[in-house]
Amino acid sequence: MTGTVEERQERTRFAWIAGVGASAGLGAALARRFAQGGLSVVVTGRSRERLDAIVDEIRSAGGHAVAAPGDVTREADLAAIAGQITTQGTLEVAIFNAAGATRAPTLELSAEQFEAAWRVTTLGGFLFARAALQPLLAAGRGSLLFTGATASLRGRPPFAAFASAKAGLRSLTQSLAREFGPRNIHVAHVVVDGGIDGERLRTSSPQRVAERGEDGLLSPADIADAYWYLHQQARSAWSQEIDLRPFNESF
Amino acid sequence: MTGTVEERQERTRFAWIAGVGASAGLGAALARRFAQGGLSVVVTGRSRERLDAIVDEIRSAGGHAVAAPGDVTREADLAAIAGQITTQGTLEVAIFNAAGATRAPTLELSAEQFEAAWRVTTLGGFLFARAALQPLLAAGRGSLLFTGATASLRGRPPFAAFASAKAGLRSLTQSLAREFGPRNIHVAHVVVDGGIDGERLRTSSPQRVAERGEDGLLSPADIADAYWYLHQQARSAWSQEIDLRPFNESF
Amino acid sequence: MTGTVEERQERTRFAWIAGVGASAGLGAALARRFAQGGLSVVVTGRSRERLDAIVDEIRSAGGHAVAAPGDVTREADLAAIAGQITTQGTLEVAIFNAAGATRAPTLELSAEQFEAAWRVTTLGGFLFARAALQPLLAAGRGSLLFTGATASLRGRPPFAAFASAKAGLRSLTQSLAREFGPRNIHVAHVVVDGGIDGERLRTSSPQRVAERGEDGLLSPADIADAYWYLHQQARSAWSQEIDLRPFNESF
Amino acid sequence: MTGTVEERQERTRFAWIAGVGASAGLGAALARRFAQGGLSVVVTGRSRERLDAIVDEIRSAGGHAVAAPGDVTREADLAAIAGQITTQGTLEVAIFNAAGATRAPTLELSAEQFEAAWRVTTLGGFLFARAALQPLLAAGRGSLLFTGATASLRGRPPFAAFASAKAGLRSLTQSLAREFGPRNIHVAHVVVDGGIDGERLRTSSPQRVAERGEDGLLSPADIADAYWYLHQQARSAWSQEIDLRPFNESF
Repeated sequence: MTGTVEERQERTRFAWIAGVGASAGLGAALARRFAQGGLSVVVTGRSRERLDAIVDEIRSAGGHAVAAPGDVTREADLAAIAGQITTQGTLEVAIFNAAGATRAPTLELSAEQFEAAWRVTTLGGFLFARAALQPLLAAGRGSLLFTGATASLRGRPPFAAFASAKAGLRSLTQSLAREFGPRNIHVAHVVVDGGIDGERLRTSSPQRVAERGEDGLLSPADIADAYWYLHQQARSAWSQEIDLRPFNESF
Repeated sequence: MTGTVEERQERTRFAWIAGVGASAGLGAALARRFAQGGLSVVVTGRSRERLDAIVDEIRSAGGHAVAAPGDVTREADLAAIAGQITTQGTLEVAIFNAAGATRAPTLELSAEQFEAAWRVTTLGGFLFARAALQPLLAAGRGSLLFTGATASLRGRPPFAAFASAKAGLRSLTQSLAREFGPRNIHVAHVVVDGGIDGERLRTSSPQRVAERGEDGLLSPADIADAYWYLHQQARSAWSQEIDLRPFNESF
Repeated sequence: MTGTVEERQERTRFAWIAGVGASAGLGAALARRFAQGGLSVVVTGRSRERLDAIVDEIRSAGGHAVAAPGDVTREADLAAIAGQITTQGTLEVAIFNAAGATRAPTLELSAEQFEAAWRVTTLGGFLFARAALQPLLAAGRGSLLFTGATASLRGRPPFAAFASAKAGLRSLTQSLAREFGPRNIHVAHVVVDGGIDGERLRTSSPQRVAERGEDGLLSPADIADAYWYLHQQARSAWSQEIDLRPFNESF
Repeated sequence: MTGTVEERQERTRFAWIAGVGASAGLGAALARRFAQGGLSVVVTGRSRERLDAIVDEIRSAGGHAVAAPGDVTREADLAAIAGQITTQGTLEVAIFNAAGATRAPTLELSAEQFEAAWRVTTLGGFLFARAALQPLLAAGRGSLLFTGATASLRGRPPFAAFASAKAGLRSLTQSLAREFGPRNIHVAHVVVDGGIDGERLRTSSPQRVAERGEDGLLSPADIADAYWYLHQQARSAWSQEIDLRPFNESF
């Protein structure tokens, strides 16, 4: 945050969010929330079309957003996006929201499926962290936030692959927090413990959605508020992990 | 929140905070924060004088506060305060911040010391929860928040008594969250993991305070912001537990 | 373990087990197991009659046992028993198996019930540890083992009082392990995660017992083997905590 | 365990241990322990020479052992070994002891290093479990045991890659325990929390070894006893996880 007022006014403040897909999903909600907070949002995901949809929506609402399609399992994609951000402004917050879910009895899970879940969820988190840390450390401060799940804390079938990958990601965030906290980077992990109210559940399990009742599923916008809060925390009292679940969730 | 607009305007909205002592402490900071949020703050602690000091300060700043001296280990004290709150308005949030710390090698710890730590920390939390739940349930919604510590998660000497009591309190908050979440009461536990910048540490360990550097101890005001945030969370995404520590804390 | 061979042969080696009740319970099974291991077993509980029954059984099988009735919430009782053990021999292992279970919705739980659960479960554990540590430290080595439960790790209704007390006990065992491990005392906590096959469940829930099938409930004798194993562990590789549950338990 | 007495006598009972290297290491100690327990030990590791050394030692002591060189990251290797075991006898216990340790500041860790740690530690555990479960399920009972570490529970630099992989492995063992426990397979995870007294530490940190004193490092033979105990547990009281550390370890 050095520089004269004039210089600082010229710098664009960026939020980079990876794992952005459907408009009704968490990635899109995170993009909306940080755009509302005044940041220029860089959205990364594999579908150019879906990224464009959320970018258009944010711009229509008066916010700043840009699509940066890419695959979190490819270092080159991430390095290129991080480079563009560095060129155009300052990275204030980076959020890793990608995950590869697979459900199957363990003996029916192929090595390829087990690896694919890890590659997107854990390796992706590592590669994203490395790409984002460069501009964050250059800025001298910032937040690096990760999306976790119930499975992050507990392995159970038929989620052996997903849970293993999420546990590996959670551990990584602990290492990063201990290593980069003292360097002024706030690393936090959000345990989303329950079903998210979105396209996937409404399509696959309409009855479950109905049974849960009002606010019985996690609203993406409400989850996104937690990330925004984490980014706003004063550094004398940073959270490394918070859990989120609906008021009537059995846990 | 039923009633006509006129009736609702007449109802005072209360925050009840137990475990309020020194002006520089967390209890006082919580009182300030919830008064700033527009609530009438009821502060409970054993020292009338200390309560009056924080009440005066809040009133001078234009807020609403009232001293309700009492001992959290005495049901009658808590019931009387809860009764007054119910008569005069609606309880929106109740915070239990009392704790009885003792440090000693375990064999030098008397049964009385072990019990005293539990009585203030755990039994106090139970009695406070029971007293506060009546008006919270009557209001149909609200928050019930508890202060935890590093010791809540891990027993180690010379904190055997304190840690045991804090672990018992943490477990209680889990039971309460599971029981009263579905009844619209948000129960959360805040793990304060590190030294708090206040009267106690500045007096007892000035050198430690100096070594930690700027923001190296938890600021009571920053901690209090986390409680305020928890109280504001939408019920589709409630946290049951969050941790807080300085950015440069080794953990 | 000092003294000449002659002296050592004269010393009786004791196992002290507190929380011994019904013949079909875990306390009695622990007494049997350690008597089979060649130790003289001192059994403590509140019912003289029940203690006599297990003592008679052990003696009939050729083992050594003595009844030492007492209340774990009374320091004097425990000090007297520890004194007798010290006079007559060497304490090798002490096991705390007492617990005060209460189940009720939290708002129906009285302060007396909440306190009673803690008094037997947590304070009892503290007082027992202090009484046993004196002869254990005098012997220069030994084991101090504690019985935990599912509730030790997780608070949920209607077990708010029991879980809080068990969590407080578990924390205490962590403090004790860290403090007395380096002094050659092995402190361990056994998480019994599931229903125990005994008098209580067979009377209260015969249908549940039947549904669980063979080995579907924890056999007290099998649990007791785990305590014996912990006592036998070489000190280069001590466990602080182990969990135990039936093979077909859902967890 | 069906078949006539004659048939059963002809069946060789196997223990398969993957991750066997130096004679002074844990893998070799596990092989010795299960050979002493009367099982024919199949040892898998990447060095034929090292496997031959431990096989020769076990045979010289009157035990049964066979070298089965292979790479735990290659399904074909594991399938071939599992096939041979099935042809020649019954698999009673399978132990996964391989791990890929890397230490480096996170930003200096390459994607290749991060992946390599996971490939040996986590993917290897998955592939080994799948290969071993076929003969274990065919036998109708057995144990599937995994080696964990301090890092399994807690991520910290410079162990970001190792800890992430170990956390992923631990989660996998939880999924496996929940899925295959009811099918009579005992899945357990051993948290080795401290330095192991072996070739590596004695070479790399002789001073640390000296400072720890007698029994101040984990003896591989003592660790191996814990695996043997887990294999012997009655199924009414199985452990899913145990921790092991020296008596004087600070934790």
